[in-house]
Amino acid sequence: MVSSASQEPKRPSSVSFYMHDTLQNKTHPWTDTAVEVAGPHHNLTGLGFGKIIVFNDSLTDGPSLASSKIVGKGQGVYIYDHTQAGVAFNALLLFSALIETGEYNGTINFMGADVILAPSRDISVVGGTGDFEMARGIATITTHSIDGDTFIVLFKIKLIYW
Amino acid sequence: MVSSASQEPKRPSSVSFYMHDTLQNKTHPWTDTAVEVAGPHHNLTGLGFGKIIVFNDSLTDGPSLASSKIVGKGQGVYIYDHTQAGVAFNALLLFSALIETGEYNGTINFMGADVILAPSRDISVVGGTGDFEMARGIATITTHSIDGDTFIVLFKIKLIYW
Amino acid sequence: MVSSASQEPKRPSSVSFYMHDTLQNKTHPWTDTAVEVAGPHHNLTGLGFGKIIVFNDSLTDGPSLASSKIVGKGQGVYIYDHTQAGVAFNALLLFSALIETGEYNGTINFMGADVILAPSRDISVVGGTGDFEMARGIATITTHSIDGDTFIVLFKIKLIYW
Repeated sequence: MVSSASQEPKRPSSVSFYMHDTLQNKTHPWTDTAVEVAGPHHNLTGLGFGKIIVFNDSLTDGPSLASSKIVGKGQGVYIYDHTQAGVAFNALLLFSALIETGEYNGTINFMGADVILAPSRDISVVGGTGDFEMARGIATITTHSIDGDTFIVLFKIKLIYW
Repeated sequence: MVSSASQEPKRPSSVSFYMHDTLQNKTHPWTDTAVEVAGPHHNLTGLGFGKIIVFNDSLTDGPSLASSKIVGKGQGVYIYDHTQAGVAFNALLLFSALIETGEYNGTINFMGADVILAPSRDISVVGGTGDFEMARGIATITTHSIDGDTFIVLFKIKLIYW
Repeated sequence: MVSSASQEPKRPSSVSFYMHDTLQNKTHPWTDTAVEVAGPHHNLTGLGFGKIIVFNDSLTDGPSLASSKIVGKGQGVYIYDHTQAGVAFNALLLFSALIETGEYNGTINFMGADVILAPSRDISVVGGTGDFEMARGIATITTHSIDGDTFIVLFKIKLIYW
């Protein structure tokens, strides 16, 4: 985030957004927002364990990428660190939300275990900059929809600033 | 971690566990818990510098994987970012401990420099969820034992919740 | 960081350093401090999107690697998660500064979006150990100079300890 020390941070106590993640495949590479960059050489552990995916996803205020307002970008990485078909897919999720709306500008930094098949799961807000300067908090994640390789995920975030 | 907003977090001021990490090799792939997924193409920097290892390790309340109580999973990644044979092996350690005991349920998120050959080293707790909601703290790591490709490491963790 | 529970942390409210990062190339491998370890197989997304670079950079108190005082090492990873030629290069920056001066000893852990072409940008301090025990804060990053594959970057860091 571009630093803006001259302005007083706005420090909202909550924010939410939808993140739109489309995994790279061969049929629609022009709409990719996430790409696999590493994985095990010998796939002994099965099912994608160890894969690292880098993403640059649009963030919107509603669930539709076409008609909702863009509020920023989610940029970072997820790493499959537990997989078991139909039972569990966990990823370590590390990313920055670069928020840019009329109201708020700044970044929120996230880290946590994304238990992908759980209806709802929590990760940590570990820091923030700009209008979110010194934020900490909890993001509750729910999967809004899955359409082929496109995942739309809702983040509801509670923030504190001490 | 599955979110559980309806319950009051228990917020313990300390927790400890042993983490059991077995690096993938060709002789016992069925017991692997950690796999190399990336590294430099040209090994100019020597000794494994740059390697990324993804892990899904059991956490126990005592040092024995066979007889101690399982208290959760450690899931994440370590990245060798400094190596010098016999002198120094540092890794950036990023992982979530998914704790599930009778007493506590939740996740603790860790980040820090694991100075592997030091008898004791500290990393940061950067967040927590569930019973560890909003945790921060320090984890002191000591290597309990090394047996071939299996490392047993003790984490003693002090936690605060403001 | 080697743990040092017996001493009282010094907890400075600010610290700054220059970080010296030299990307691996074929003409001067002996001075490399950063190496690419992963990236997309199909470079559909162009311009290095998805590349992961692991680094072990010297930290100095002034801009000259030759004549400034060494104050520690910056060890970690950056991940290109947004690229557009001449317009934007963002990286997720995750690293530990292992500070060792006469005055302070400890680690500071950083996470944030490094908007590389911005004259100034902020990332989060998400934790600290040793003399920086329990630190949080903001690091304002400015690019001091670029010379071929060598980047010298100034970190001005404000720290709090609650």
